[in-house]
Amino acid sequence: MKSLAMTAISLSMAASAFAQNEKSETGLQIARNGSQASAKGSADYFTGTVRVDPLFPKPNGPTHATGSYVTFEPGARTAWHTHPVGQTLVVTAGAGRVQRWGDPVQEIRPGDVVWIPPGQKHWHGAAPTTAMTHMAITELSDGKAVDWLEKVNDTQYGSQP
Amino acid sequence: MKSLAMTAISLSMAASAFAQNEKSETGLQIARNGSQASAKGSADYFTGTVRVDPLFPKPNGPTHATGSYVTFEPGARTAWHTHPVGQTLVVTAGAGRVQRWGDPVQEIRPGDVVWIPPGQKHWHGAAPTTAMTHMAITELSDGKAVDWLEKVNDTQYGSQP
Repeated sequence: MKSLAMTAISLSMAASAFAQNEKSETGLQIARNGSQASAKGSADYFTGTVRVDPLFPKPNGPTHATGSYVTFEPGARTAWHTHPVGQTLVVTAGAGRVQRWGDPVQEIRPGDVVWIPPGQKHWHGAAPTTAMTHMAITELSDGKAVDWLEKVNDTQYGSQP
Repeated sequence: MKSLAMTAISLSMAASAFAQNEKSETGLQIARNGSQASAKGSADYFTGTVRVDPLFPKPNGPTHATGSYVTFEPGARTAWHTHPVGQTLVVTAGAGRVQRWGDPVQEIRPGDVVWIPPGQKHWHGAAPTTAMTHMAITELSDGKAVDWLEKVNDTQYGSQP
């Protein structure tokens, strides 16, 4: 969820991780594990404790995609939001939930891949008693990854998946 | 490495995994773990045993990126190749190697993020005695993800990183 990194940390700080590694104009670039600082998900846009670990926080070269790991502690979740170009989530650990506005809550597990189309109001997060980590791959529209809406209240979150 | 899925399995077969899950025209799409078949890396383009696990084998909606896990058994590696729009690798397990043509071999470890610029001749694979898995995020140019070149011979592979 590129948006998390954008709201939580300076984009330029995050992007500079590549410059601190083996960057060259024409060669391969390796951003080493430990070179890109974890960030806390802002209380403005999240409920509970959320950590964002940037992977490729800016599109590389001619590409469009950005990527980060997002880890939700038990019960933690995003606010309702939409993505201008959509978002793909690859669940990598734990147990989580995702809900599109107007649809039932769905459980998501490691190895599941979620595609959120552009403009779809939704949220995602951990299960009530189990944490969840996903990689979020997000493409930008005029530099924007997300439009934030209201928080997910406990009634909405607590509905049985 | 989208290209692996393209060469190893039918793209239409892989893409249909979404259709077999909770697809709807306007809602979220979840490709469940277990719904997308693993594929073997072709001996034409790989040395040793390589498995490709597709995640999002076609760009979703208006996006450009594709993604898959690629697992290299010890000593296994790609042939030399280039990507028209580049490729981003996120190492998720094991110990591996990457080399740009003309540069030394470099070790890569879980959490490392590698950016391969467009047109850069390179290879990647496992360490000699340890397997390696990475997620490969690849954008396409006119539907093409890769241009394959010659195999990486044992002398090239065996050079100390």
